[in-house]
Order: sequence, then C-alpha cells, then structure tokens
Amino acid sequence: MDRRAFLKKAGLATTTAAAATTLAAPALSQGKMELKMVTTWPKNFPGLGTGAQRVADRITAMTDGRITVKLFAAGELVPPFESFDAVSTGTADMYHAAEYYWQGKHKAFNFFTAVPMGLTAVELDAWIHHLGGQELWDELSAGFNIKPLLAGNTGVQMGGWFNKEINSLEDLKGLKMRIPGLGGEVLRQLGATAIALPGGEIFPSLQSGAIDATEWVGPWNDLAFGFYKVTKFYYYPGFHEPGSGLCTGVNKGVWDKLSDPDKEIFMAAAAAENNVMYSEFMANNGTALDTLINTHGVTLKKFPDEVFDAIGKTAEEVVAAAADDDIGKRVYDSYAKARKDVGGWGKIAEQSYTTNRDRVLG
Amino acid sequence: MDRRAFLKKAGLATTTAAAATTLAAPALSQGKMELKMVTTWPKNFPGLGTGAQRVADRITAMTDGRITVKLFAAGELVPPFESFDAVSTGTADMYHAAEYYWQGKHKAFNFFTAVPMGLTAVELDAWIHHLGGQELWDELSAGFNIKPLLAGNTGVQMGGWFNKEINSLEDLKGLKMRIPGLGGEVLRQLGATAIALPGGEIFPSLQSGAIDATEWVGPWNDLAFGFYKVTKFYYYPGFHEPGSGLCTGVNKGVWDKLSDPDKEIFMAAAAAENNVMYSEFMANNGTALDTLINTHGVTLKKFPDEVFDAIGKTAEEVVAAAADDDIGKRVYDSYAKARKDVGGWGKIAEQSYTTNRDRVLG
Repeated sequence: MDRRAFLKKAGLATTTAAAATTLAAPALSQGKMELKMVTTWPKNFPGLGTGAQRVADRITAMTDGRITVKLFAAGELVPPFESFDAVSTGTADMYHAAEYYWQGKHKAFNFFTAVPMGLTAVELDAWIHHLGGQELWDELSAGFNIKPLLAGNTGVQMGGWFNKEINSLEDLKGLKMRIPGLGGEVLRQLGATAIALPGGEIFPSLQSGAIDATEWVGPWNDLAFGFYKVTKFYYYPGFHEPGSGLCTGVNKGVWDKLSDPDKEIFMAAAAAENNVMYSEFMANNGTALDTLINTHGVTLKKFPDEVFDAIGKTAEEVVAAAADDDIGKRVYDSYAKARKDVGGWGKIAEQSYTTNRDRVLG
Repeated sequence: MDRRAFLKKAGLATTTAAAATTLAAPALSQGKMELKMVTTWPKNFPGLGTGAQRVADRITAMTDGRITVKLFAAGELVPPFESFDAVSTGTADMYHAAEYYWQGKHKAFNFFTAVPMGLTAVELDAWIHHLGGQELWDELSAGFNIKPLLAGNTGVQMGGWFNKEINSLEDLKGLKMRIPGLGGEVLRQLGATAIALPGGEIFPSLQSGAIDATEWVGPWNDLAFGFYKVTKFYYYPGFHEPGSGLCTGVNKGVWDKLSDPDKEIFMAAAAAENNVMYSEFMANNGTALDTLINTHGVTLKKFPDEVFDAIGKTAEEVVAAAADDDIGKRVYDSYAKARKDVGGWGKIAEQSYTTNRDRVLG
C-alpha cells in the first residue's frame, strides 16, 4: 500500500497530518515548555501508571523543569483509548500506552506490544534496539504523526483466572473469557467466546457470571484487582502476552522541534523506564503470587500440554494472518527472524541456566 | 566491622578519603565540566567497550556538552585494574567496569557483577532497582568514595572452551582452566587448576597448551577472539556468570557536587545502557553461535547433569563463604532472598513460557 492510501486507511488524510503539526505546538512561556502526557492507565496504577509517571518525572527532572511533562491518567483529558488520536492530532503531546490498543488503526501495532507465542521482554528489546524493530516502528507510527519509544514491559503475563479447571480443549468450548486482541481471536477459533472489557469492568462481570474467565496482567496487578475473591483457578503460562512492551509516543511535530540534546533526554528517559518497569514486575510478582496462594487459597495450575499446544498452533496462524499488507509483512518477517535468532540463543543461555540452577537448588 | 575499620581494611584511611574529595574536582572552564571515564575494556570492544562509550556519549549529548565525558580505554590513562583506585582517589572521575574486579578490596563486590549459581540479568535488575540492592551497593562503595550505577549486562555466559570432552567430574581433575574469581575457586575445589589471565593472553595460552580450557563471555565476544581456531568443544550453560552486571562508578566528590538534574541524567544514562547493552548481547549471540557451529565446525556441548550439579553444590558453599563480615552477610542475605523470590516467579513466567513455546515451535 502506498503512503497516501496508508494514511487514508488510518483516517488521517495528509491535510489532517499537516494541520496536526500546527496544532501540536506545545505550551511555551519564558523558554519553558509544558507537555501533556495522556495515558491509558488509572492514576498510579502499579507498574504501568507509576511507570508512565516516572517517564514524565524523569524528563522534567533531567531538564530541571525547562520541559515539564504533566501526566493525565485515563479519562482525565481524553478517554484512554483516544490517547493515540489525541497525540496524533496534537490535542496532547505524548502518550504512555500499549501499542496493541491501536490495532484498529493498523494491525502491525500488535507486534510492538506483544503477540501470542511472540517475543519475551528481553527478545522484544533486542528486536527494537538492535535488529531493525525501531526503524519499522518509526515508519509505521510516522504515518500517524507519532514518534514511538519503548518505555516499559510487564514480562510474561499469566494465563488467567478460570471458574473451572481446564483439562482439555473441550473445556474451552463455549467459555466466555475476557481476553482482547489477537489472543481473543485465538480462543475464538478454538470455540470460546472472547470479550474485550476495560479493567474496571472485569471484577463485576466475573462476579455476576457474565464471564467465566479473564486474563489481566500478572500476580502483582491481579492481586490488587481482587480476582481471587471470585475464582480460585489461576493458570500459567500465558500464551497471549509473553512480554508486553509499553510505549511513549510523542507527537511528531513536537519531536521534530526538540533539540538533539532533548531528543537524547527523551530516549534515555524511555530506555531507563524500560529497564526499571520490567524489573519492577519481576521484583513484585513472585511475592504477590505467594500471597495469592498462601493467604488467599488460590490454586496455581499449569495448562495441560495438549491445550497449550493447540492454542500455540492456532496462535501461529492467527498472528501470520494479521500481517496482511506491505508494512505488516515486513514487520512480521523481521519479528519472526528475531524470535528465531534471539529465542534460539535464550534456550542455550537463560533457559538452560535457570533450568539447571533449579535442579541443583531443588 | 565499624566504618573506620572498614575503610582501613580497604586501604583508604579517612584522611585519604578526605584528600580524594579535594583531588576529585573535575576540570572546569566557562561553566563546562570535563570528566575522565576510565574503563577495563579495550577501545570499542563489542558490547562492553562500545557500551561504556555509549554511557559517556549519552551524558555528553544530553547536556549538550556542558558535561563532556571523555573515555579512556584500558591502559590509556591507568592500567585496567587500577580503574577503581583511580576513581576512588580522583585521578579519574568515573569508571565503567565489572565490580568483581575489585573483590580484593571487598569480596561483596562479586555480588554486584555475578556469582556462581547467582542472579540472571533480569533478576539482578530487580534486586538492584527494587529489592534493596542499590542501597547496599551505595553503602559498600561509599566506603571507597564511589557512587555506583548499574550500566550494562552480558547475560548468561557460556561455560567455556575445552580441549577435550567433559563427561564426568574426573575430567575436571588437573584441568588447567582460565577462569577468574569465585568461579575459579569452585573449580579449584573440584580438583582443577584455575588461572586468571587478562583477555589478550588467553588465545596464545590456549594455543601453546599452557591452559586446557577457558571461559570468556559468549559467542559474540568469543568469536571475535578466535578461540575456535584452537579448540572445538564449546560448553553450556555457564555456572559462573549467569548475568554479569557492569557498573558506572562515579567519584563521590564529583557525584555529590552534581546538581539534582545532572544526577538524574547520570542515572538515566546508566539505566538506559543497562537495557541497551543486555539486549545487544541477546541480539548478537545467537547468530554468532550459528557462525561458530556452521562456519567454524565448533561442537556445542551441554555439561552432563552430574558435572553441573557437583559444580552447583560446590558453588553454593563457595559463595556463602565469601560473605564473611557484616556488610558481606547483609549483601548475601538480600541477594539470596531476591534469587528465591524473583527466580521463583521466573519459573512460572519466562521459563515456563519459553519451554512451552519451544515445544510448539519444534
């Protein structure tokens, strides 16, 4: 698809894009710049919301307030899922969010957060920073007037909460599960009903029986939402989000006007958060899982191999089918190569070492 | 041990420390500051040397040259292993190095790089950033007039190159292997002769038969050193360095005089590199291993379980014995708790997911 058709498909005609650049001029007074950062997270939501706040605060602190980034939680300035359009058109200057929320704009955005059976956090970092991911991301996002920076990761997510045991593929049939995006499409193909619900609606839906199951993030976040009060079967490993990368997207008009030193500050603020947030999830999930099991009586279950394998094979087809135009195919090919090369090394390195260490430590 | 005795043991009487602060004043002219960063790496050595350069360049770029960090490769300003003393006394302002090089100053430094059977890169990040590691590190390094920042990681290292197969513990007896630090001590207890050699001396020693085996880093770095020309057995997984963290150490006099915004810039520069360098090793090791095997005829071998388990059990004793004073014991306890909590979560998350993914992908 050529660029013009691409922009048109995205609902951003070239004239709109030009207007957006004008609109995007951030508030300036006495050499100071104030930038609005919208997010898809509740205020100070653990890991995600606090991480977005750290990106904002880090830029403000490094520039001694010359550039002040003011964070707006979900709904404070615009509804969460309008963050992308708000930054694209210049209503806001930056967002912190997960790129797969914009899969309605272009399916390739899925690859920059997580896809089923896809890259882990470390593999995603390797792809984005060193194996061509950033260049493809820049190209994709430029079509929407946005400069994207990797700025956080949740790590491997849990498979989810179920009101019954999952012993075979039969148990997925007719199951009503809250699971958005490509992961939902995979379950749909296996006979489940996949539903997308915002975070705040999950608990009541699970409690009323409107849904039978839900995925969210992992023990640290799931404990906070209290799902253990309604259901006790907590499954791993998640197939659907093996390392969800978060993004700081900057309006391209704002980005292009930043000085080179300020661009470096934005890039370092994002890359630092990428390191700090992922390790925060790693630091907190273990003890949260312990609390869920030992204080709240949650039963930790592993998906049977038969079930995971069927899900995995379906996922491979669903993800490949999501790459259905020129840039989509290039993103998919580059991503798949990274999975092969980096994943192959991980088997010899991190995976082999931790397996051996576990055996020794018992 | 009290602080005075601690400083004395470290060869840094309090008067010396005071003098160091005076010496440490960096070169200033017209509001600009020039800082000397010494390193333990050859100029632009892949990953390590280039990573150190990126830390220096990032600070220079973010401050638009107001703070210029000039990098000196190993031996350019001081011999590599004198980097610590140079920064401690103010001859240099910063170093980029691996903290276990200073284990002669205090054994607890080992824990801030890597110890046998210890934390992986991601686990180390979780410990340093979120589970008390940084505070203990600050305390340890302050005794030597240094502020430490985590700034890079190699990931899990390879077990090493051997001139014969390792089929049983018997094969370790009498083996002359280049392996420094606590890893060397472990092999010594199992009957091997462990030798410490700087990087440049490894290849000729292997070629002449002065040593039978060597560890270095991983495929990307080992390919560059050409070990495959001498020996073909390449073993995994390494037990000795499961994720070697690198450090940017700043002279404390220099650090304390930095403004708060500049401190934020240094911290972000280091944390960003921590993300960028680790993912660079992950991005490059897989294809380098492929080249070693398919172009250079290297035989990839896994340590037999019996051998790894004996090494692992000995390692647990050697590492515990290295914590032999107050701060050493507190570092060890905090590190061991992080290994249990974060490692336990990793088993459910990254480890379980990648194992399942491998099975599906075949």
